[in-house]
Amino acid sequence: MLFTSDNWAGVHPAIMQAITEANDGSVPAYGNDALSKRVTAKFEEIFEHECHVFFASTGGAANGLALSQLVPPYGGTFCHEVSHVQMDECGTPEFYSGGAKLLTLPGKDAKLTAAAVEEGMRFYTPPMTHHVIPKAVSLTQVTEAGTAYTPDEVGAIGAVARRHNLKVHMDGARFSNAIATLGCAPADVTWRAGVDVLCFGATKNGALCAEAVVFFDKAHTEEFAWRHKRAGHVWSKARFMAAQWKAFLSNDLWLDLAGNANAMANRLGEKLGAMPGFTIAHPVQANEVFLTFPDGVAQKLLDQGAQFYDWVYPGDTWNGKLKRLVTNYRTTEQEVDRFIDLAAECTG
Amino acid sequence: MLFTSDNWAGVHPAIMQAITEANDGSVPAYGNDALSKRVTAKFEEIFEHECHVFFASTGGAANGLALSQLVPPYGGTFCHEVSHVQMDECGTPEFYSGGAKLLTLPGKDAKLTAAAVEEGMRFYTPPMTHHVIPKAVSLTQVTEAGTAYTPDEVGAIGAVARRHNLKVHMDGARFSNAIATLGCAPADVTWRAGVDVLCFGATKNGALCAEAVVFFDKAHTEEFAWRHKRAGHVWSKARFMAAQWKAFLSNDLWLDLAGNANAMANRLGEKLGAMPGFTIAHPVQANEVFLTFPDGVAQKLLDQGAQFYDWVYPGDTWNGKLKRLVTNYRTTEQEVDRFIDLAAECTG
Amino acid sequence: MLFTSDNWAGVHPAIMQAITEANDGSVPAYGNDALSKRVTAKFEEIFEHECHVFFASTGGAANGLALSQLVPPYGGTFCHEVSHVQMDECGTPEFYSGGAKLLTLPGKDAKLTAAAVEEGMRFYTPPMTHHVIPKAVSLTQVTEAGTAYTPDEVGAIGAVARRHNLKVHMDGARFSNAIATLGCAPADVTWRAGVDVLCFGATKNGALCAEAVVFFDKAHTEEFAWRHKRAGHVWSKARFMAAQWKAFLSNDLWLDLAGNANAMANRLGEKLGAMPGFTIAHPVQANEVFLTFPDGVAQKLLDQGAQFYDWVYPGDTWNGKLKRLVTNYRTTEQEVDRFIDLAAECTG
Amino acid sequence: MLFTSDNWAGVHPAIMQAITEANDGSVPAYGNDALSKRVTAKFEEIFEHECHVFFASTGGAANGLALSQLVPPYGGTFCHEVSHVQMDECGTPEFYSGGAKLLTLPGKDAKLTAAAVEEGMRFYTPPMTHHVIPKAVSLTQVTEAGTAYTPDEVGAIGAVARRHNLKVHMDGARFSNAIATLGCAPADVTWRAGVDVLCFGATKNGALCAEAVVFFDKAHTEEFAWRHKRAGHVWSKARFMAAQWKAFLSNDLWLDLAGNANAMANRLGEKLGAMPGFTIAHPVQANEVFLTFPDGVAQKLLDQGAQFYDWVYPGDTWNGKLKRLVTNYRTTEQEVDRFIDLAAECTG
Repeated sequence: MLFTSDNWAGVHPAIMQAITEANDGSVPAYGNDALSKRVTAKFEEIFEHECHVFFASTGGAANGLALSQLVPPYGGTFCHEVSHVQMDECGTPEFYSGGAKLLTLPGKDAKLTAAAVEEGMRFYTPPMTHHVIPKAVSLTQVTEAGTAYTPDEVGAIGAVARRHNLKVHMDGARFSNAIATLGCAPADVTWRAGVDVLCFGATKNGALCAEAVVFFDKAHTEEFAWRHKRAGHVWSKARFMAAQWKAFLSNDLWLDLAGNANAMANRLGEKLGAMPGFTIAHPVQANEVFLTFPDGVAQKLLDQGAQFYDWVYPGDTWNGKLKRLVTNYRTTEQEVDRFIDLAAECTG
Repeated sequence: MLFTSDNWAGVHPAIMQAITEANDGSVPAYGNDALSKRVTAKFEEIFEHECHVFFASTGGAANGLALSQLVPPYGGTFCHEVSHVQMDECGTPEFYSGGAKLLTLPGKDAKLTAAAVEEGMRFYTPPMTHHVIPKAVSLTQVTEAGTAYTPDEVGAIGAVARRHNLKVHMDGARFSNAIATLGCAPADVTWRAGVDVLCFGATKNGALCAEAVVFFDKAHTEEFAWRHKRAGHVWSKARFMAAQWKAFLSNDLWLDLAGNANAMANRLGEKLGAMPGFTIAHPVQANEVFLTFPDGVAQKLLDQGAQFYDWVYPGDTWNGKLKRLVTNYRTTEQEVDRFIDLAAECTG
Repeated sequence: MLFTSDNWAGVHPAIMQAITEANDGSVPAYGNDALSKRVTAKFEEIFEHECHVFFASTGGAANGLALSQLVPPYGGTFCHEVSHVQMDECGTPEFYSGGAKLLTLPGKDAKLTAAAVEEGMRFYTPPMTHHVIPKAVSLTQVTEAGTAYTPDEVGAIGAVARRHNLKVHMDGARFSNAIATLGCAPADVTWRAGVDVLCFGATKNGALCAEAVVFFDKAHTEEFAWRHKRAGHVWSKARFMAAQWKAFLSNDLWLDLAGNANAMANRLGEKLGAMPGFTIAHPVQANEVFLTFPDGVAQKLLDQGAQFYDWVYPGDTWNGKLKRLVTNYRTTEQEVDRFIDLAAECTG
Repeated sequence: MLFTSDNWAGVHPAIMQAITEANDGSVPAYGNDALSKRVTAKFEEIFEHECHVFFASTGGAANGLALSQLVPPYGGTFCHEVSHVQMDECGTPEFYSGGAKLLTLPGKDAKLTAAAVEEGMRFYTPPMTHHVIPKAVSLTQVTEAGTAYTPDEVGAIGAVARRHNLKVHMDGARFSNAIATLGCAPADVTWRAGVDVLCFGATKNGALCAEAVVFFDKAHTEEFAWRHKRAGHVWSKARFMAAQWKAFLSNDLWLDLAGNANAMANRLGEKLGAMPGFTIAHPVQANEVFLTFPDGVAQKLLDQGAQFYDWVYPGDTWNGKLKRLVTNYRTTEQEVDRFIDLAAECTG
């Protein structure tokens, strides 16, 4: 009954096998090996578009690198007030960009809207030197509330962004979960909807350590390789990064793994939501369930071995009631049902 | 009828005279002249405490320098969501600190409260590496809404700050106006109330170009001189900075000048506030009046030569109605009364 | 007998008068006053070219700002190994640029040569991500050794720079002294010779506090105003900066003042150089004389009230012998001759 | 005949096995798993001292992080003029530290000496605000010339460093090769000799991706975890980093692997050095041979399938003659001898 975080799970066997297979012989370092050179084609196949791909060890680094390319130090990035880049990366975007500001906006279920971005631009229009110049919008797909932006929602934000010369960044640590739930083409919520750069994460869905910064337009990558190197994020034995991606993106593995995690969260959400006194806080669209339990029940569940975290936002008058349940690529129906049964027991 | 900004006024004659008098002979550069060495004593006399004083050309630089000394790049500073450091310095604190975050808090009349800081700390307690570590609270005295923190208010915030190992920074671009309105000892709203560093501005009250970073404890200034130099804020002909301060702080000039500005704003606020359809948005405690005019009146006033600005905050559903009137050290009763008469005329 | 530094002298009367005259009435802040708007024309007249001018309080800030505009954080700037930007600004260029590297090159009399820059590029050609990308060359005019680059020398470096896509920055803290000694048009050692941005200093030649970043091409100034503001270098009462420049650049004042300083150094150099045991270390071309005295003489001179500094470079096996004598705009023949007489006396 | 770089080799089987074994079950993320918690003990056993260990994906990141902890933005780090931190990390130390300067010193065979550091301090003594404050010395062990600092050499530098309040950083990307060649206790060239932090690399000696920042004193690690996180270098699935280290440091694997690489380089160096017209440029002490071949021989070797690189330093009047041969943990005698035979053939 492990619902703490999707990165507690290990590496999927197919990905581990790809890593061990990549260990054959001596090959050039720093991405000049054949596997590294070929892996971009995998991205291009999935996104139906040219892709300019750079790897990173963590989602924080990927986001920081991508934003530092789009936003100068005197610029700003609109993001949701509880987004991961704003709340959970210890200031990584500020570090990478040399102090560019995150400009927070509100929004239901942790989602930005086109209207919110439009309204946000008002204060910065026309540009004045007293204020930073907004240069980007950052979307988290899926959001910190476990919700997914639809192609239409991203497209509407993309249109506002273009009108105001803002680039669009997508933090896709759980991008697989988004595509698995939306059922759309990856292109539909990325470049077709105006996204300029996607930080695509594999680690939360079964990789060992694999994040990718995917630019859809070469124009945005000029000299990005130098930022990448200078941040210390270029693996010398790059083949082991490429191998993970090759396995992850082959045979729909990424969608199957995310699909399982989503299905398990959905099962949790539906059943718990139907139980008296359990309140689901946000629509369950991916692999996270945010909820409040009846009084005393959460503690009883923890006492009996279930594992999950409290969830709190700054500015909440925090009462300790909101909890987050996260499922992963190998969460089983048995595990979910055991938790539900136990929850029913603790409540009854 | 000039109510745009207090830095449109020129230099007070006594300060200009001090500048010209300082131009006698050749003296050591970079603050090693006799005048520069003596001016600290003026600060210590006024603050009744040891002072470690460094000068800057702008309030933005002073704030950025001071905060960079108190807050590491992975740290955070609590400030009001409409404070000058957050809204109007184009990211100066982020630049100087290497990307430390400003952690915004709400508060009536642009004031932080001890309770808001206490609540703000909750999310950051205990410290987790996913979040920056709060290291400081920044207060603006007087605030962006023209209100002044009382000694008790600062003291309460100072107490919360000490409990959480936060240093207290005061942005005092209009510190003179605050003291003139509060009538307290400068010490009462600074070191006695827990303030560690004051950025004290003279420019808005009659100086040519004179801001000071005043540390009350030598422990906070270790190697600060290097930050100061490296930012390019050490005037080679430092005597002309010192001369301004000497004149400003002598014979209560600073309080007299701020006192006039305050009195004129008070006169504006009282009379306009009593007129039907005029709404004063914040208590008038210093040299700024925020108000809404009856429909059409603001434009008529502008058409007839009055000068003042619209005022807007991000997040406002902005309707263009809020205006700011700023008085200065040489605003006259005649100027104020002419504006009031004209306002009455435009309304009638 | 004051030969310590040219910034020990006070403000020239004509400049002080311009400051006091500018103090008439209330005018818009932050450079929107009439005087600030007109002063650019003065620069354009002198440089016979469009100029995009931004002011700063110190030469360090001017250099840091200019370089941060030309060089990204992963870039590099070639400069002489004893240049002011490398040795004497406590890392200002690194601070402003977010950590871009200075790439030092050797050269006689503190001068870079076209050949040295060409050779310097070799290591960085073709660009590799292990190395920063050179983006600029920085020249100091006059150099730290008191020598001046001729139009041909600058032109040759400018040509190499263009071939390698390097921008050319000129640190002109003593640019007036250079023009006074070279007798050429200011254009000849700046834009005509390939210089993209000049940091032009007035402070060392009689201003109170006045440095200017002068871009010769609008293409290089895009959004520079935001860097300028964010660094805290935009004076609110900008008219007092503009006034200094207007006076400095009018009626050839800048050339007259620098001309006097140069003449006095020349007098010192010629006479001292002719005395047995005195060795002039670099050609005296501006207002600085670097020399070694016969044993014991320097101390005797200091004991009798002469003022000057030891001079040392890192890497020197320092023996305490090299001294620097700096003249300024109001150094007199009497002062120079008194020093020479005294030197002769101490030697005899 | 692969002598390009030691990171072209794959992962040693024992390390790959440790990775796959670590993939058992679900464990806490971000280093809170049992394996991560236990691995520090391995370091402490080897160094006979308390160790505070943080991991990174690359040596550049490790060095940047470590130096940013020891050196403030206005500080400087002495390093050799051809050291990796200075020449080959695209400005990583400057990025991580917010622009602190590297202060380069010369030295034979890419080694700093105590005398060079002592001399280097002269320019910075006493501290002046025009100059950065030296705060650290960085040593590369083994150096960029393939030479190893002896315990006495490090100790002498450590003593000078302590006298000047400099911390000592060791870039140990090839630390294993150093210990294998020196035959001393790891403590003898680190904490016992005054080293404060070691960046210990395993990747070049058989790991997949494993670098460690090892502080020997808790006093230097205060809040380092926040720098680490904010740089995006904390792996979520940290167990796979710990597993590599556990295997690497067990059963002397690290010394055996480095020992083989060293022996092969030694064999290359001895035999080639004895051949007429071959000149060894630096003593062969670890796994690198720097040499010049007789005219035309290098090209012939490359044509016949040998792989190695040109080597050049900035400032060299580069003639394309210096070559670098690097051996690795799985280079064989056969491979070495084949190269030597071929070299003889090409020469004859």
